[in-house]
Amino acid sequence: MTSKGEALLLDFWASPFCARAKISLYEKGVNFECREEDLFGGKSDLLLRSNPIHQKVPVLLHNGKPILESTNIVTYIDAVWPSPPLIPSSPYEAAQARFWADFIDKKVFDAGSQIWRSQGDEQEVAKKNFIEILQQLEEALGNKKFFAGDVFGFVDILLIPITSWFLTYEKIGSFKVEDRVPKLSAWIKRTKQRETVAKALPDPEKVYEFIVGMRKQLGIE
Amino acid sequence: MTSKGEALLLDFWASPFCARAKISLYEKGVNFECREEDLFGGKSDLLLRSNPIHQKVPVLLHNGKPILESTNIVTYIDAVWPSPPLIPSSPYEAAQARFWADFIDKKVFDAGSQIWRSQGDEQEVAKKNFIEILQQLEEALGNKKFFAGDVFGFVDILLIPITSWFLTYEKIGSFKVEDRVPKLSAWIKRTKQRETVAKALPDPEKVYEFIVGMRKQLGIE
Repeated sequence: MTSKGEALLLDFWASPFCARAKISLYEKGVNFECREEDLFGGKSDLLLRSNPIHQKVPVLLHNGKPILESTNIVTYIDAVWPSPPLIPSSPYEAAQARFWADFIDKKVFDAGSQIWRSQGDEQEVAKKNFIEILQQLEEALGNKKFFAGDVFGFVDILLIPITSWFLTYEKIGSFKVEDRVPKLSAWIKRTKQRETVAKALPDPEKVYEFIVGMRKQLGIE
Repeated sequence: MTSKGEALLLDFWASPFCARAKISLYEKGVNFECREEDLFGGKSDLLLRSNPIHQKVPVLLHNGKPILESTNIVTYIDAVWPSPPLIPSSPYEAAQARFWADFIDKKVFDAGSQIWRSQGDEQEVAKKNFIEILQQLEEALGNKKFFAGDVFGFVDILLIPITSWFLTYEKIGSFKVEDRVPKLSAWIKRTKQRETVAKALPDPEKVYEFIVGMRKQLGIE
């Protein structure tokens, strides 16, 4: 029970998108129940009923009403539990944050998936594309502590969970993110030390094992 | 000059994404300058400097500061000029509006483009996919006047400009949207009569001529 009613998260342990919701709820100090979905064995009726269009996690049920899509869930959490704020209050800074949110949502996870879903020349192209995207993010970060400046917030929450998959991309693609984007890598280390982040993120080694299994199933190896 | 400084829109006449910004500015009664970009002959230095990552219109320059990505621009306009509101003030209703915004942004224009970019069996698949998307939107609309209920707002603004391209999809794909989604078609007619919409939307016949030319250039015909 929270001061604003019941919050239930339909979750999947490896999903960086579910981790976004968890970090946001931890940041706000919201008590919530987390229910693991069996995405491969059979999704729950509650998931299918709550998200009939995409049938995907995360779903946040707040007092029984479903909120869908992780970026939207973070925005909702920020509106319902305003303290501490995650999205900047200045419309211009909020617009900048949303621009990078959109950039991350359109590019990072899909570009990373192209690395583990491919081999040979195709994988080389995927790696090059992925690193270019990280370089654009590194440029946006600049010398700031977090994406919005000194304060941890929206863009950090959207990006940091995906970095739990970087070990998988590195091992399968034989490269090191740190060699290509040192400032962004320093941001990853710094941000992963934050308590709300540390307890929300999946173990990178377990993500790697999960994806190695997936590659075998898909016949990629 | 507006009461909150200067607004300049970098525009392209046929772009449904630019029309979203124009409708929003008209709804708010904001005076703005509209500058047509030559997307094929050469983009302006101002566009390239304002949006170095995507190099796309629309760009809204408000007091010289660039706001990028059309959905983000509409959100920004709603925050800076609050009356009349476009995004619902209730966090749950705002989350629902953002869910459909995201659905529209990911699906409608790209699915429509697949119709005019293809031929034969591939075009049949594209048409089927496009109509399924419209049916999902029709279900979301239900018997309401606008997507959020009685009041014109965010989701209407994001979707209505893309319908200026429907004549093109219909002529090239040999089908009628009205036969498949009667309620959504009634919403289109109703919404296009709104003054702020009527003056922002491109002429569907001109869009069709533009795309016929594009198909010839791409060797599709």
